[in-house]
Amino acid sequence: MKAFQIVEPQKPAELREVPVPEAGPGQVLVKIGGAGACHSDLHLMEAPPERLGRLPFTIGHENAGWVETLGPGVTGFAPGDPVIVYGPWGCGLCANCREGRENYCQTTGGLGGGLGGHHGGMAEYLLVPASRFLLPLGTLDPREAAPLSDAGLTSYHAVKRSLHLLGPGSTAVVIGAGGLGQMAIQILRALSAATTVVAVDTAADKLEIAKRMGADEALVSGDQAVTRIKDMTRGQGAQLVLDMVGVDPTLRMAAQMARVLGHLTIVGLGGGALPVDFLSPPHECSVAAPYWGFIPELMEVVTLAQQQKIKMLVEHFPLERAGEAYQLLHDGKIQGRAVITPHA
Amino acid sequence: MKAFQIVEPQKPAELREVPVPEAGPGQVLVKIGGAGACHSDLHLMEAPPERLGRLPFTIGHENAGWVETLGPGVTGFAPGDPVIVYGPWGCGLCANCREGRENYCQTTGGLGGGLGGHHGGMAEYLLVPASRFLLPLGTLDPREAAPLSDAGLTSYHAVKRSLHLLGPGSTAVVIGAGGLGQMAIQILRALSAATTVVAVDTAADKLEIAKRMGADEALVSGDQAVTRIKDMTRGQGAQLVLDMVGVDPTLRMAAQMARVLGHLTIVGLGGGALPVDFLSPPHECSVAAPYWGFIPELMEVVTLAQQQKIKMLVEHFPLERAGEAYQLLHDGKIQGRAVITPHA
Amino acid sequence: MKAFQIVEPQKPAELREVPVPEAGPGQVLVKIGGAGACHSDLHLMEAPPERLGRLPFTIGHENAGWVETLGPGVTGFAPGDPVIVYGPWGCGLCANCREGRENYCQTTGGLGGGLGGHHGGMAEYLLVPASRFLLPLGTLDPREAAPLSDAGLTSYHAVKRSLHLLGPGSTAVVIGAGGLGQMAIQILRALSAATTVVAVDTAADKLEIAKRMGADEALVSGDQAVTRIKDMTRGQGAQLVLDMVGVDPTLRMAAQMARVLGHLTIVGLGGGALPVDFLSPPHECSVAAPYWGFIPELMEVVTLAQQQKIKMLVEHFPLERAGEAYQLLHDGKIQGRAVITPHA
Amino acid sequence: MKAFQIVEPQKPAELREVPVPEAGPGQVLVKIGGAGACHSDLHLMEAPPERLGRLPFTIGHENAGWVETLGPGVTGFAPGDPVIVYGPWGCGLCANCREGRENYCQTTGGLGGGLGGHHGGMAEYLLVPASRFLLPLGTLDPREAAPLSDAGLTSYHAVKRSLHLLGPGSTAVVIGAGGLGQMAIQILRALSAATTVVAVDTAADKLEIAKRMGADEALVSGDQAVTRIKDMTRGQGAQLVLDMVGVDPTLRMAAQMARVLGHLTIVGLGGGALPVDFLSPPHECSVAAPYWGFIPELMEVVTLAQQQKIKMLVEHFPLERAGEAYQLLHDGKIQGRAVITPHA
Repeated sequence: MKAFQIVEPQKPAELREVPVPEAGPGQVLVKIGGAGACHSDLHLMEAPPERLGRLPFTIGHENAGWVETLGPGVTGFAPGDPVIVYGPWGCGLCANCREGRENYCQTTGGLGGGLGGHHGGMAEYLLVPASRFLLPLGTLDPREAAPLSDAGLTSYHAVKRSLHLLGPGSTAVVIGAGGLGQMAIQILRALSAATTVVAVDTAADKLEIAKRMGADEALVSGDQAVTRIKDMTRGQGAQLVLDMVGVDPTLRMAAQMARVLGHLTIVGLGGGALPVDFLSPPHECSVAAPYWGFIPELMEVVTLAQQQKIKMLVEHFPLERAGEAYQLLHDGKIQGRAVITPHA
Repeated sequence: MKAFQIVEPQKPAELREVPVPEAGPGQVLVKIGGAGACHSDLHLMEAPPERLGRLPFTIGHENAGWVETLGPGVTGFAPGDPVIVYGPWGCGLCANCREGRENYCQTTGGLGGGLGGHHGGMAEYLLVPASRFLLPLGTLDPREAAPLSDAGLTSYHAVKRSLHLLGPGSTAVVIGAGGLGQMAIQILRALSAATTVVAVDTAADKLEIAKRMGADEALVSGDQAVTRIKDMTRGQGAQLVLDMVGVDPTLRMAAQMARVLGHLTIVGLGGGALPVDFLSPPHECSVAAPYWGFIPELMEVVTLAQQQKIKMLVEHFPLERAGEAYQLLHDGKIQGRAVITPHA
Repeated sequence: MKAFQIVEPQKPAELREVPVPEAGPGQVLVKIGGAGACHSDLHLMEAPPERLGRLPFTIGHENAGWVETLGPGVTGFAPGDPVIVYGPWGCGLCANCREGRENYCQTTGGLGGGLGGHHGGMAEYLLVPASRFLLPLGTLDPREAAPLSDAGLTSYHAVKRSLHLLGPGSTAVVIGAGGLGQMAIQILRALSAATTVVAVDTAADKLEIAKRMGADEALVSGDQAVTRIKDMTRGQGAQLVLDMVGVDPTLRMAAQMARVLGHLTIVGLGGGALPVDFLSPPHECSVAAPYWGFIPELMEVVTLAQQQKIKMLVEHFPLERAGEAYQLLHDGKIQGRAVITPHA
Repeated sequence: MKAFQIVEPQKPAELREVPVPEAGPGQVLVKIGGAGACHSDLHLMEAPPERLGRLPFTIGHENAGWVETLGPGVTGFAPGDPVIVYGPWGCGLCANCREGRENYCQTTGGLGGGLGGHHGGMAEYLLVPASRFLLPLGTLDPREAAPLSDAGLTSYHAVKRSLHLLGPGSTAVVIGAGGLGQMAIQILRALSAATTVVAVDTAADKLEIAKRMGADEALVSGDQAVTRIKDMTRGQGAQLVLDMVGVDPTLRMAAQMARVLGHLTIVGLGGGALPVDFLSPPHECSVAAPYWGFIPELMEVVTLAQQQKIKMLVEHFPLERAGEAYQLLHDGKIQGRAVITPHA
């Protein structure tokens, strides 16, 4: 079969012919419907060898498809079932894994296929090491649903953990209205109808999209956005500020927008750092940088998509054009998510 | 191997010779160290055929031992490892199972080995259908630890779900100071040192044991116990009342002891029912009857036992004397827990 | 001034001339805009003398109006401010009061004006014993807003305490689509957009209204409603069942509709009782009967009304027609809420 | 009466003769039993004029004593009652105040007496602006209890907000074993008996005290302490790290000691800042800097002291020696807490 692999460190991935893997006991072979192209894959292609593990390996950590074959002992699925793949593959036995929090596996650290160590899904088939990493998609098309497993789940987790703060009259700010930010806006809208959702971005077209996705207000980044949020909240700031960008200027802005007892959540991998001291952000505002999300949350993400409450803009590419898709992503020319469809 | 089986409905179980099972993919064969004898096994021996499923089957749902053989694909354990068996065996794929709440599996209902459907552990070996049902025991002896998996876990779950109510100055009442009640008292002591723990029972010797286990007060059941608890709590009642008996009189007493916004938890299978209306128990006191507990909770129970904060009184019987052990249990002559030790 | 008072036990209340009260230190005199007529007032008019305290007293525990005069030491309000009155008047010093849970005051039991002990608001003026019982109404008209303080708050509290159960794909059932039920449906819609809301009632016109208020399904009470809810939930039942009626048949139906780990909340004062045992309702489904709600929750109710997400159907009556309003209420001829408007 | 006041910015406070205040409506005059001398008072004496408000004012924000006179309208207390004063004085009407979180008042910011704006308690009498700021002390001596209101409450709040993380087998680290750290260790011991408590400090004598207070381990600050904590926790780090120092090196150390999904809480006002990014502290470890604590928490602190589970080391000084006490505090010569006792 064909697979899109990193062969040498700091070189673009390339399409190669490799054997189709076989499903051993407890494992499942999935025929890939869609594999999302993520910015973090670009980081992998630029990473030094010590971060990559054994080469070559197939990239692609945002996958959905159809069950092809079940390894010995697997029950609960049948060939042909449309499924989405939970990406962080834990040990299944530590305290975090046993609650479905395999992104925080105490043994593997939550790395899954396509991130080093295991082959990922940007290929015709993906070997999934345990059936617990699969969720049924029902009526959803794997080619559309693939981005739910990372872009969807990461955004969902960042909102869900703060939902208790978002009662009537509350305010949530999403800094950065790109793919993940758009998802976060839709999720806030779906989970907390009585919250005022504010999008903040530097680009006017992104702010336009944000409003279509359900944002109540859309503000251009900067001091005036801070002032406006203070005004909307009687000087208190927002209960939740999600920074989907994560560079120093957005983090500084986020700290000024958050309130006492609020949450400031760093989702974007922009490489910035927020200094926390006694006075900033406001007292007892919790600052945290989550990584991905939990399995039960992915079940809820799939449900929201089935209810048509969330939807990712998707652009499809055949496996042969995977390299081109990453080039477009690198150049900022992808709206929403590029999804590779090996069997389109 | 020898196994203690229900062969005919409404007859005592009997010792039989059966083949040693083999571990298929994902499964684990456990050499039984200890299998606890539980009152609910007596109910099974008296149950009508329709509640039992296919006969004969081996009873014993409270098991610990050592890994004997690993089926294909199992990792994380090695032969000889001392392990405890989580008893309610779910599907592993529903929303509850994915959080480690397999006692509430939406497919199986949380029935496990020894309760109908699967063979249990009162035999030389137990076939465990998936490695996720095993937890390492570390330095604990399986012959002592077996009761942690039901008596321990059931009590722990009943306390843990109410822990947020048990701040400094709070009061918790345990009605019934038998095996489970003694466990609940120790757990309350270990988890919530600033709570006043009150034991209530009809038997003076049980109240004596309760005080040794850490109860701050021990009261004889009845109206005077209700009055005393009201006095201790400035007329408000207890934040948590655990009824480990569950007959109508204890439930009525529990309702009088509980407070507004408290919890009244029915653990004992005494067959009683508590009528809940607008005036009784006090407003917004939550009444619930849990069943067993969660996998992550069993990890914590094992930790408490390793820290020597909880301990079950145990009386050992070889497999040949299993019938006698149940007779003693039936006659109320077991202190703590009877544990069958096939390889003692 | 005129006041509608219970003068003799088990007689209808009557309109009487009484002195306008004066606001002492910390107190506030409120000019009544609206005072809601509640079924529990009818119960008061039929109650034996020992439940009523000192007679005569003015009824009306669901009040809103305008600040008339501030007693010495009161700050934070000015004459003319539109305000809603939090009804359960606690001591302000016990543990519950200090969290704004004065409905569960450990000293007063949460009785407020109009329920015995204090005069209520069905009069030209109401003396409120402490400014902390007032919340600003902003742009809302007190004549429309009065029912928020009981019908609104009671429903809101019953939903809010279970909100953590109501994620995407969840189901909430409201039994009884009268005034409180309609409010509960709107609140569920506003707080939890991804929950399926099901209304159950015996009356077709109520079901029609329920759908207009936002219910996704409306079912006629009975076994078929139970079957339908089981079908919708893959056999699991609903996460939350609110019984706004509270008679034995609705409670029995509620127990069959609820799920493991769910909530069954008794709001209606129908006089029924639900027997809870090990098998029914489903395991660890919490059964509770709350009384009214918390002050911070009333702030959120007011916000929802300001956002136009909830609205009570209101029928206005001048103070002179209060007796007639109660007669209509008694005869089941009030749609929504009858509100007495002494200064209309 | 005599009062210890800041008269000029950046000068030591001095003892002055001032009139005894009178209790207006809703207010209470308290005869001071003890007023704790806190490091932040030293900061006030060094602060620029713009941070101080109107001068002169009496310092002392950690107060207990006896009710002297009740203003008009005050109920629930009687002259002579021993009371502790909740220090952060809010408006009583905003959302935070209404839950007893007046330290986060949206109007006043939670400043109370002795911090600018209001006179504090380092005087013969303190005027408390509302009776809700008083809690009964029962059998506790105000001269001993005063430090509970700040040193006790601040530590308690920092522990209580993270208590859900501290199950059996968990680890909590307290960096800095001075007055607040010692209090935190005792509180951890009292609230969470199954947690391993680790003290970290640079001073051997402090570590000795920490062990006497209940710490399971006491480690000298530095890389070896980080290594030891990683070893104790199978490489995962601690669930809770409290930094009672708050300088850059302790914060950096704290970040290395904390775990995924843990809490890193900055209590000490050392002036440092912790940079938070995607990789440090570990994923989804929440970093926050609380200020003081909630009224219901102070009730629990008083209960713990009544149960003799917590105790502050106290050194008494008459009001005439207040200046000397601050000099000793400044020079690091106070063990535990210096408490001024105007009526000793």
